[in-house]
Amino acid sequence: MKLSTRIAAASLAALAVAGGITTAATAQAAAQDAPVVQTNVLSADAALKIADAVQKEAVKQKQRVTVAIVDRSGATRLILKGDGAGPQTEESARRKAFTAVSFGQPTSALSKNQALAAIPGTLLLAGGIPVASAGSPIAGIGVGGAPSGDIDEALAQAGLKAIQGQLR
Amino acid sequence: MKLSTRIAAASLAALAVAGGITTAATAQAAAQDAPVVQTNVLSADAALKIADAVQKEAVKQKQRVTVAIVDRSGATRLILKGDGAGPQTEESARRKAFTAVSFGQPTSALSKNQALAAIPGTLLLAGGIPVASAGSPIAGIGVGGAPSGDIDEALAQAGLKAIQGQLR
Amino acid sequence: MKLSTRIAAASLAALAVAGGITTAATAQAAAQDAPVVQTNVLSADAALKIADAVQKEAVKQKQRVTVAIVDRSGATRLILKGDGAGPQTEESARRKAFTAVSFGQPTSALSKNQALAAIPGTLLLAGGIPVASAGSPIAGIGVGGAPSGDIDEALAQAGLKAIQGQLR
Amino acid sequence: MKLSTRIAAASLAALAVAGGITTAATAQAAAQDAPVVQTNVLSADAALKIADAVQKEAVKQKQRVTVAIVDRSGATRLILKGDGAGPQTEESARRKAFTAVSFGQPTSALSKNQALAAIPGTLLLAGGIPVASAGSPIAGIGVGGAPSGDIDEALAQAGLKAIQGQLR
Amino acid sequence: MKLSTRIAAASLAALAVAGGITTAATAQAAAQDAPVVQTNVLSADAALKIADAVQKEAVKQKQRVTVAIVDRSGATRLILKGDGAGPQTEESARRKAFTAVSFGQPTSALSKNQALAAIPGTLLLAGGIPVASAGSPIAGIGVGGAPSGDIDEALAQAGLKAIQGQLR
Amino acid sequence: MKLSTRIAAASLAALAVAGGITTAATAQAAAQDAPVVQTNVLSADAALKIADAVQKEAVKQKQRVTVAIVDRSGATRLILKGDGAGPQTEESARRKAFTAVSFGQPTSALSKNQALAAIPGTLLLAGGIPVASAGSPIAGIGVGGAPSGDIDEALAQAGLKAIQGQLR
Amino acid sequence: MKLSTRIAAASLAALAVAGGITTAATAQAAAQDAPVVQTNVLSADAALKIADAVQKEAVKQKQRVTVAIVDRSGATRLILKGDGAGPQTEESARRKAFTAVSFGQPTSALSKNQALAAIPGTLLLAGGIPVASAGSPIAGIGVGGAPSGDIDEALAQAGLKAIQGQLR
Amino acid sequence: MKLSTRIAAASLAALAVAGGITTAATAQAAAQDAPVVQTNVLSADAALKIADAVQKEAVKQKQRVTVAIVDRSGATRLILKGDGAGPQTEESARRKAFTAVSFGQPTSALSKNQALAAIPGTLLLAGGIPVASAGSPIAGIGVGGAPSGDIDEALAQAGLKAIQGQLR
Repeated sequence: MKLSTRIAAASLAALAVAGGITTAATAQAAAQDAPVVQTNVLSADAALKIADAVQKEAVKQKQRVTVAIVDRSGATRLILKGDGAGPQTEESARRKAFTAVSFGQPTSALSKNQALAAIPGTLLLAGGIPVASAGSPIAGIGVGGAPSGDIDEALAQAGLKAIQGQLR
Repeated sequence: MKLSTRIAAASLAALAVAGGITTAATAQAAAQDAPVVQTNVLSADAALKIADAVQKEAVKQKQRVTVAIVDRSGATRLILKGDGAGPQTEESARRKAFTAVSFGQPTSALSKNQALAAIPGTLLLAGGIPVASAGSPIAGIGVGGAPSGDIDEALAQAGLKAIQGQLR
Repeated sequence: MKLSTRIAAASLAALAVAGGITTAATAQAAAQDAPVVQTNVLSADAALKIADAVQKEAVKQKQRVTVAIVDRSGATRLILKGDGAGPQTEESARRKAFTAVSFGQPTSALSKNQALAAIPGTLLLAGGIPVASAGSPIAGIGVGGAPSGDIDEALAQAGLKAIQGQLR
Repeated sequence: MKLSTRIAAASLAALAVAGGITTAATAQAAAQDAPVVQTNVLSADAALKIADAVQKEAVKQKQRVTVAIVDRSGATRLILKGDGAGPQTEESARRKAFTAVSFGQPTSALSKNQALAAIPGTLLLAGGIPVASAGSPIAGIGVGGAPSGDIDEALAQAGLKAIQGQLR
Repeated sequence: MKLSTRIAAASLAALAVAGGITTAATAQAAAQDAPVVQTNVLSADAALKIADAVQKEAVKQKQRVTVAIVDRSGATRLILKGDGAGPQTEESARRKAFTAVSFGQPTSALSKNQALAAIPGTLLLAGGIPVASAGSPIAGIGVGGAPSGDIDEALAQAGLKAIQGQLR
Repeated sequence: MKLSTRIAAASLAALAVAGGITTAATAQAAAQDAPVVQTNVLSADAALKIADAVQKEAVKQKQRVTVAIVDRSGATRLILKGDGAGPQTEESARRKAFTAVSFGQPTSALSKNQALAAIPGTLLLAGGIPVASAGSPIAGIGVGGAPSGDIDEALAQAGLKAIQGQLR
Repeated sequence: MKLSTRIAAASLAALAVAGGITTAATAQAAAQDAPVVQTNVLSADAALKIADAVQKEAVKQKQRVTVAIVDRSGATRLILKGDGAGPQTEESARRKAFTAVSFGQPTSALSKNQALAAIPGTLLLAGGIPVASAGSPIAGIGVGGAPSGDIDEALAQAGLKAIQGQLR
Repeated sequence: MKLSTRIAAASLAALAVAGGITTAATAQAAAQDAPVVQTNVLSADAALKIADAVQKEAVKQKQRVTVAIVDRSGATRLILKGDGAGPQTEESARRKAFTAVSFGQPTSALSKNQALAAIPGTLLLAGGIPVASAGSPIAGIGVGGAPSGDIDEALAQAGLKAIQGQLR
């Protein structure tokens, strides 16, 4: 049986403030008796819009960066390496995105919890932010290559802004 | 906006016969304008039922095998290495499951198309079968370790049977 | 010559308290002159029981986690990724299990010895516990994905409890 | 000394027909005495245009694919995983792109030369095409996920078409 | 409960002739209800005797080879790289040993079944032989580096001979 | 359209002093509307001159080192392992070069910023220096194997000196 | 005790004709009773001469290639990626060199023995040749990137020629 | 021309005290003009003697450990996993051996220099010691698995003692 989930979505702003992973009753928990559950996933169209916005903002700020989007399964949804971005940026952007979607928090907030850095695939440098829907992280946006993580994070936020009005 | 998808599910039997990946209008295609789409995913509870059924049937047949379940994102959902199963079985079971969910067909049907064997992560030996929902593959079940791929596939089918009545 | 080992098993509770790796005369030491020695290994049936118990307790506590079981050879015996568990949980659960069976102690006890973190495959975050038989670690149970390692460890303990009465 | 290279660009159509790697005197050859040579690289803006065009065409054809762009250094410039694309598509798209830019030919043309398949990173399935500038391959576009390589290649061509008018 | 297994061992000669993996009722199958089963493992002392015998025979035959021993869990028990052995021999010896213990047959017998070559970790070149106890493969001996696989296999046999009298 | 870039090159000395990544308007930024941009790359001839100079200086100082050159795409341009250099030197030299070209600064200057050490591929030990052209890092030179990083860096500088007169 | 070996060197030409690995009594065999044996290794100076010669010949022939030198231990001694060489060339050159030093024959001669292609690290495409001293292979030279393996091999021979007069 | 090297060997005891890498004029330095230099390598026979001695001492002390020997090229010469040794011991023993031969010092002495821990392949835990000949490290012995690094190092010393009388 396929479950239709209509849980009211927590606003992203709330999530950004609260940080932690929500564990409230979700579609997943409800699915105990059904072989199939439904999961929210970022669309490819939204991924392109995010990348385009990050890229435009980076050019405006003369930053040479790579942007990555990773979904909740850990799969890469998008990589865009900007003109002149350094060779370290593909992996740093990807890992920031991975970390943000794993823990449902910006990597800048996680960096005080260095114990997590030992988990494979993570990177606790600023520049990764989660994308949430229905109160759960569904993707992470990671940016790498600017001289400081604050700039990377601001660029990632510019990407999120491009789709945020449509998120529930 | 979150899309609710209510597409009538193609029966699994039909899929097993037809083989190929269905490309009919799905939730994904419809999601072009929304940042979030819904995807069907096998539940952990179903994964455990499948593993338990494969394991019981393997013991009955005195086969020493590993069973793996991989979902459509490529993530491992379950691994169970049976008593006395060989060291090659974890990876062979996982790759059979990966291949079945990638192409939406049993690996026994794919083995005549050896060109696919060059794609990383695939294994074109019998023993992998897809799990479908709403006409699309949502997971793969892979079994490795029996003396022939036919036996591996029969064990995988025993696992699928444990949840098939509930699949739509 | 095959050795039959009948050494009285140290109780698991004792091991959990004492922590360290027992180095008392075991079957292994006695096997010096024989080409084959016998080793205790967790059964697949027990692995499934552990996973089922962890999964049930996690659902009750609304935690989205992965559970892994690794045996003393380092081979993966079981992976079960729960509904909605993050992409980092497969590897964190596996490494916690690996670490617990390697050192015969819970990872929470090991985390004060950070020098061990440099050994490949280890992860010194709470959530991994050893399974012992006859005074030696034969497997590790690792859980990852809860907001704190304490919760992960409690879930792992729920798994161990499911088979502990039968362990010697 | 930095060399300014003004070699008339061979038309891409010509390259697509002729296939082989041009070895005519290029900026690189001329650079023997200078420590720095100039290389043509696809812009990030062009990469986004290609991805957008592939994605739009794939939606129109109801194909669930991933598109990848790799430059002549082997670095990934873009990955876009479409909605519902299989887990094998990231790596198959990337390798097709890698192969096309390595040999300056479509992978469909290379597939008769199976000896090349042994070179790490290559994939000799249709769906990869080179992007040329000044007579040399500067990037590869790879598409994976359609039921046949011909469809993958047509989608890659739709991407190339989006920037071809501007290429020299 | 720990199971004591006293199944009469099939003679190694019989196994070498018959090849296939025995699936007769074993300790593993019987262990369904117990959390711990016992497995036969090659002793380190026996591994050293095997390596010493291979090494001595290789020197006598003026062959420059590596010998590897892998147990049924897939763990490396021994590697000895002989004087002047080529750089490819560590991995070829290890994979031959892995293959022999996985399938319970000499790699020379398996080489006609090339489909197995697609399973990660295997190598279907002569030079790998299984070590059996109680009718099941417990380890594999692999030798690599001689000009022909026949010589590699003969050297592996010289190693097995050093402990065979004591095997049951 | 191919862009011809004639931006006055910042002197290397200035870069060496200033350290940070220049983000001034470059060819890359200007390329927004063109599908192809031009990038400065170190020539193979220059790479050989650098390696020869490092090697000669190392012999003079009786140091056993490896020198590596990595370009801005992350591709290895040169590796030369000196006589008697340790097994760790290939990777340490390569990573120092990678780090220097990634951040446009000597690794000795970066070592106070240990947070960067978590980015894959980096190594924050002295011995890596950037090669700059037109104000941007185009390659990194890394040396590993001397008893102290200061000596490694001096050897790298000897390599840079061999081509510096010709750099703009 | 350190052994001094003064075995008359087989001429390289003879080795090139005869192919196979010489198994005559060598220093290694003689070393049975000593803890230390002496091995012939290509010097870094010779490696640079080889690379310089290959590079010069490639420029003359307008080929864009990478040259690699691997020694008998499997360690990389030299990599030089030529201007404009494809991204596949580093690994193809390295593997050709590895294969030639492993088997003591040119890869063009080995390509008829495709079974060897399954050994990790090998590549059976023309372009790799061994460097021999005292009748044994001490290094391999590999070239990749030319439109045909014959050209790659001719370039490798140009490299060997640069030091051959001095080899014994 | 092949160089014959007759440099008086520094005693190992001296090396153990002095620690650092000797950079005195060696065969390598002298080889500048010759294409072939001679390197001292530990014999396979000595490797077996070391492993046998470590194994015997470990049994006597009831320690379950793995011993590894790595030569100066970084190649594995020997691995012996003892009965009941943990799954982490293969890699910890190998890395200790790699580290000791890389830096020519016991890993216990290096552990105060944690910056080196960032170099791939190293492990700065006690239990690795160098084997020296003619004043240079030619191999490393690494032991892992005992409850403390001091015991691991003592076991490695027991191995070295088995051949030390013959070393020059």
